[in-house]
Amino acid sequence: MIDQTSFQAASRGVGGGLFIAFEGGDGAGKSTQAQLLGQWLAEGGHEVVHTREPGGTILGKALRELVLHGEDGSVTPRAEALIFAADRGHHVATVVRPALERGAVVLTDRYLDSSVAYQGAARDLGHEEIRTLSMWAVQGLLPQLTVLLDVTSQQGRTRRGEVHDRLERETDTFHDRVRQGFLDLAAREPDRYLVLDASAPLEELAAAVRARVGGLLPSGSLS
Amino acid sequence: MIDQTSFQAASRGVGGGLFIAFEGGDGAGKSTQAQLLGQWLAEGGHEVVHTREPGGTILGKALRELVLHGEDGSVTPRAEALIFAADRGHHVATVVRPALERGAVVLTDRYLDSSVAYQGAARDLGHEEIRTLSMWAVQGLLPQLTVLLDVTSQQGRTRRGEVHDRLERETDTFHDRVRQGFLDLAAREPDRYLVLDASAPLEELAAAVRARVGGLLPSGSLS
Repeated sequence: MIDQTSFQAASRGVGGGLFIAFEGGDGAGKSTQAQLLGQWLAEGGHEVVHTREPGGTILGKALRELVLHGEDGSVTPRAEALIFAADRGHHVATVVRPALERGAVVLTDRYLDSSVAYQGAARDLGHEEIRTLSMWAVQGLLPQLTVLLDVTSQQGRTRRGEVHDRLERETDTFHDRVRQGFLDLAAREPDRYLVLDASAPLEELAAAVRARVGGLLPSGSLS
Repeated sequence: MIDQTSFQAASRGVGGGLFIAFEGGDGAGKSTQAQLLGQWLAEGGHEVVHTREPGGTILGKALRELVLHGEDGSVTPRAEALIFAADRGHHVATVVRPALERGAVVLTDRYLDSSVAYQGAARDLGHEEIRTLSMWAVQGLLPQLTVLLDVTSQQGRTRRGEVHDRLERETDTFHDRVRQGFLDLAAREPDRYLVLDASAPLEELAAAVRARVGGLLPSGSLS
């Protein structure tokens, strides 16, 4: 029998670093907020590593291409979930953990909860199964903080403009289910989540993120 | 909590078809024996589908390339296991199950046990974890028969001649561990396995395979 504990055991962070994920639908402003936070942290003297999933490594970029633009046209749902988990496992082992171990702040555009929300909620694979796959892939590493930029499907469509890949072409119903998936995850782990209305002004959102992150930094490192 | 039953439940075959896997180290003669069996079955009036893992689909070929020849050079062990599981899930959903459902005999060059033997035994990931991943990927589909062509690392090296990809360049120690992995799997499921000494003459091996397969066909379909 498989040891569920080793499959699911979660650990927040590694070494002296700080691991923060930005989550939300397409067009929610994740990369903008990550950039703003990164600038503030860098000004405070922190090493900041910006990264993303899927596609945060050379292998990951190739995997992402296969899923989004593959010749095949139709990646079966379980294969898609396994490919995203492979991308994540490789990303964590080669980028995220090494940076955290040397004390950096790692800001990732999407992480594990995106898989749960997208594949789990929207493609009818079980949430727990998708989570178990990812947790196995990353050996249980969770962020200290996940910033959810909550956006309705209508707002997201307006904000992201023209769309090109397979996931982005999905219907509003799909995006509504993804959004609800994220909100459910946030409700289950309020300590790990900061949920923000993505339609608020940029600077207001950035200030809210800074306020929460400031409390996670070693005291006195940013004032 | 995850439902282990749904993760691990095994089912042999689908519809009226017959699913047979050929396993063993590189150079064991798997594809030759699959061809000989396929000819015999086709002469008996059966639809025969020859396929392989990894790389039995367009997506699978691309995934196989990434693992064996990727630019990155170093695919982390968990990412490798997840990529092979993705290949397998897609292969079963788009090639194997449809063929079995229309009553064909599917002969695959490698299946799930290769992952357990290669990633599980030789890369120090747990056997059960690797098996669980693959079983989830294929929704529990196991072959009615797995033919293991058992070959020592020395025999395999001689038989396969020049080697080019990353897995094939591994040392004899690696191949010895893979071999033991396969033998352990066969010992655990003797009903599903036919273990043959790959150094025996081709035609002798083919006759042994035919004898076992004949007993799995609907009676009277081959005499």
